[in-house]
Amino acid sequence: MRRKRGESEGRASEAPPMGVEPGSHPWKQMAADTYKVEGEADATPNGDNTRAITSARRRSNAKQETASLISLPFKTLILLFFLTSILITGSNMPVIRNFTRVAKQALLSTPGCGCQPLTVAVRTISFSPRQVTSDASFHSVSFSETDHPKVLITGGLGQLGVGLAKLLRKRFGKNNVILSDIRKPPNNVFHSGPFIYSDILDYKNLREIVVNNRITWLVHYSALLSAVGEANVALARSVNITGLHNILDIAAEHGLRLFVPSTIGAFGPSSPRNPTPDLCVQRPRTIYGVSKVHAELMGEYYHHRYGLDFRCLRYPGIISADSMPGGGTTDYAVQIFHDAIKTGKFECNLRPDSRLPMMYIDDCLRATLEVLEAPADTLSMRTYNINAMSFTPEELAQELRKQMPELEVTYNIDPVRQAIADSWPMDFDDSNARKDWGWKHDYDLPELVQTMLNYLGVETCMAHAN
Amino acid sequence: MRRKRGESEGRASEAPPMGVEPGSHPWKQMAADTYKVEGEADATPNGDNTRAITSARRRSNAKQETASLISLPFKTLILLFFLTSILITGSNMPVIRNFTRVAKQALLSTPGCGCQPLTVAVRTISFSPRQVTSDASFHSVSFSETDHPKVLITGGLGQLGVGLAKLLRKRFGKNNVILSDIRKPPNNVFHSGPFIYSDILDYKNLREIVVNNRITWLVHYSALLSAVGEANVALARSVNITGLHNILDIAAEHGLRLFVPSTIGAFGPSSPRNPTPDLCVQRPRTIYGVSKVHAELMGEYYHHRYGLDFRCLRYPGIISADSMPGGGTTDYAVQIFHDAIKTGKFECNLRPDSRLPMMYIDDCLRATLEVLEAPADTLSMRTYNINAMSFTPEELAQELRKQMPELEVTYNIDPVRQAIADSWPMDFDDSNARKDWGWKHDYDLPELVQTMLNYLGVETCMAHAN
Repeated sequence: MRRKRGESEGRASEAPPMGVEPGSHPWKQMAADTYKVEGEADATPNGDNTRAITSARRRSNAKQETASLISLPFKTLILLFFLTSILITGSNMPVIRNFTRVAKQALLSTPGCGCQPLTVAVRTISFSPRQVTSDASFHSVSFSETDHPKVLITGGLGQLGVGLAKLLRKRFGKNNVILSDIRKPPNNVFHSGPFIYSDILDYKNLREIVVNNRITWLVHYSALLSAVGEANVALARSVNITGLHNILDIAAEHGLRLFVPSTIGAFGPSSPRNPTPDLCVQRPRTIYGVSKVHAELMGEYYHHRYGLDFRCLRYPGIISADSMPGGGTTDYAVQIFHDAIKTGKFECNLRPDSRLPMMYIDDCLRATLEVLEAPADTLSMRTYNINAMSFTPEELAQELRKQMPELEVTYNIDPVRQAIADSWPMDFDDSNARKDWGWKHDYDLPELVQTMLNYLGVETCMAHAN
Repeated sequence: MRRKRGESEGRASEAPPMGVEPGSHPWKQMAADTYKVEGEADATPNGDNTRAITSARRRSNAKQETASLISLPFKTLILLFFLTSILITGSNMPVIRNFTRVAKQALLSTPGCGCQPLTVAVRTISFSPRQVTSDASFHSVSFSETDHPKVLITGGLGQLGVGLAKLLRKRFGKNNVILSDIRKPPNNVFHSGPFIYSDILDYKNLREIVVNNRITWLVHYSALLSAVGEANVALARSVNITGLHNILDIAAEHGLRLFVPSTIGAFGPSSPRNPTPDLCVQRPRTIYGVSKVHAELMGEYYHHRYGLDFRCLRYPGIISADSMPGGGTTDYAVQIFHDAIKTGKFECNLRPDSRLPMMYIDDCLRATLEVLEAPADTLSMRTYNINAMSFTPEELAQELRKQMPELEVTYNIDPVRQAIADSWPMDFDDSNARKDWGWKHDYDLPELVQTMLNYLGVETCMAHAN
C-alpha cells in the first residue's frame, strides 16, 4: 500500500537579525507579512501514533481517549461523518485511525467551540531572559529528570514546532519540552506547555535559556525557507547562517544533542535528481539551500572536531493539515487541500509535471524523534535523506479527484518557485536511513490525501456547525 | 617536460573579527603569533614571465633589465654562481631563465645590501578610512583608466598578495592595484605601490575604500588556512565566512569583478581523491574547507541571483621562494627548501607517501590573472580546479637529492596536518579550466625544484657575501 518515492523541505519560522547584515533591517516588515503564525498549531494529527521507539500504534486507546473528550452533540455529528467516510472510501481501518486522530485534533484545537473544556496545564509564571527563573515550575509532572531529555525547540511557531513539541511531550513529559520563538504564541500554544522567547541571533539569550532550563536536546527549527529566503536574502543569510553558528556554539559548549533539519533544497541542478543519494554534488541555487549545505557541513565539522552530537535529516516537502508551511516551494501541496475543500478550485504555482519528494507531517516528526533517539553507534553518517513519496501537482490532483471529482485545478506558474522546483530532487534515496536506524514511512499518497481530507473536512464541518 | 598532476590551497592572511563570534577575542593573540608576515614579500619571482594574455615569455629582456640594476661586485658574485649552476645541473636555458629571474628578485628584495638603490615610487600620502583622500595620488602613471581595472587585493600580506600585486601592476599600471591588509606592510611593500589598511570584517571601511578608489576588481585573499584555522576555529569562521559575506555584498553592490580562491581543502574524505573532478561530493573536515565550500556556493549564488561576476579557482598547495605560506597543510613543500639549503636536513610533518597537488607560485598567479581576464562567455562554470603537479614528500626529497645528494629527511608526523592531508585530493582534475579558458601550467616538479634552489641559493650566497 505504501509507496516509497521521495521527499523535500518543510519547516518555517526564524528570528531577528543582529547587525552583521549590512544595509537594511528588513525583519520589521518580515515579521508582519512573511512569517505565518498558525493559531491552531497546537492541534497536530500525531498525538496517538508517535511513541517512536516501540513504533506500536495504539489507535484504539487513542480513540477511546478522544471519545471521552467529546460532548454529545458533537459525538453525533462526528459519528455521521465517520460513517460517511467509510461509505465513500470503501476502506476501513486506516480511515478509522485517521478519523479518530482527526476528530481529536479538531476538537482539541477549538476550545471555544462548545465542546467540554480541555484540561491543560496553564503556566502562570512567564519567562524572560532577563528574569532568571528556576525551572521549578516545570516539575509538575512525575517524569524522572535523569530518564528524559530537556528539549528546547527554536522557531517553534513554524510548520513543525508545535507538532514536534506535542510528540516529544507525550514521550518525555510536558514540561521537559520548551517551545520557543520570537513571536507571540497563540493562546492554545501558550497553554499547552512551556513556551519561551528565544532569539537565535542573541547568543547570550540562548545561553541563558539553555542553562536555566538545563536543556540537553536542542531542535533547531528556525530558518527562512526557499521562497521566502529568495525574497529576503539578507535576512535568510543572517538567520540561517549566523543563527546556526550561535546554535552550534551553544550546543557544543553545553554538550547538547542537536537536531538541525536540512532539505531537498540542499541539492541543485548539478545533483543527480532521480533519485538523489545522500552523498553527491550539492550546489544549490537558493540562499536557503546554500545555508542548509552550510548547516550540514558545519554540524558535521563540529561533530568530528568537538564531538558534538549533531543529527540532521534532509526533509522533503512537508504536508500538514493543522499548520501552514512557511514559504517553501512545496507549499502548494498543502494549499490545494484547503482550497479544494473551501472552493472546489485550486490555482497551482508550479507546472503540472513538477515532481518533488513529499511527506506527511506525522512521518516527518516521527523520523525526527527516531533519529534523535537512535543509538549513536547506529549512525554511520550525521546527515540523512528521509523519504516517503514523490508526486507532481497533477498526480496529487488526480488522487484528490477520487474523492472530489469536481475539483478544478488551473496553473499559474510562479517563475521563482518553478525555477527552484526544477533544480531540486525529483526523488530521494533514503536507503541509508532505512538501513542504519530503521526509518520507514507510514503515509503514501492515497493515505496522505485521505488523512488531509478527513481532517480538513471535519474542521469545516465543525466550523459550519458553530 | 611538464607533467600534469594535481593541486591544493595556498594563501594566508586575514582580518579581525567583529562581535558575531561568541566568547573569546582571540585575534589579539593571533595577530602576534599566527599570521606570518614576510618582510621580503615584495620580491616575487614572476616579474618577467607573466603577461598573461599573450603568455609570451620575455626572458631575455628581463635578463637585460636585471643586469642593469646590478652593481659590479655583485655581478661578479652572481656570474660565479651562475656558472656553477650550469656545471652542477648540466642544463642550460631553463637554468638561465630561472637564474636571471632569481637574481633579479634577490637584488630587488635586498635594498640595503650594497647594490645600487632601487628606483621605486614612494607614496607620501598615507590612507585612512577616516581620512577621505582622493585617488589623485594614483595618477602618476599614464595608463588610461578606461582600459584598466582598478584592483583591490585583500589579505595582501599573505603568501600570494604581494606577488599578485606585482604581476597586476606590470599589466595594469602600478597605481591601479592597491594592496591591503590589517597588518603593517614591510618597507619594500609600502614603497612598491599603493597600500591601504582594510578590514574585511568592517563593511563600511571596505565600502569607503572601494568607492574612494573606484575599485572595479576585487581579489579576496584574506583567509585563515587549514592548519591555522584548526588552531582557531572561531576566528577562521569569522574571517572566512562573515568576512566573505561582506566582500560579496560589496562586490555585488558596486558591480565588481570578484576573485575568491578556493582550495583542494574544499574536498574531504568522501570526495573522489585520485583525481578529484570539479563537480563531486564536498564534505571537508576542516573549518577552512567548510568555509571555502561556502565561499564557492555563495559566490555562485550571487552570480546567478544578482549577476555578480564571481570567479573562483581551487588552488593546490602553492610553493614560493620569497614569501612564506600562511599555515596550510602543504607548507612542508616550501619549508623543505629553506631547511635543505640552511642545514642540509629537513624534518617533515607529513608521512613520506602523502600525495598532494602542488603548484609553483608563478603558475598560480598567472592562472589567477588569466581567469580574471577570461571573457565571460568562455566560463562554463564559476569555480575551477587548477592543476600543475602532484607529489609526495618522498618524491620531492628525491628530486632535491638530485642536486643535494646529502639531504637528510626525517619524519615527525603532525597528526592534525596528516589527518587533513589524508582527507584531501591526491590529484586534481583541471580539464575544465584547460578546455574553457586555456589553462596550462609551466612548472613541473624538476623545474620547480631547480627554480627554488636557484632562488634560495642566490639569496643565501648574497647573505654570506654581506
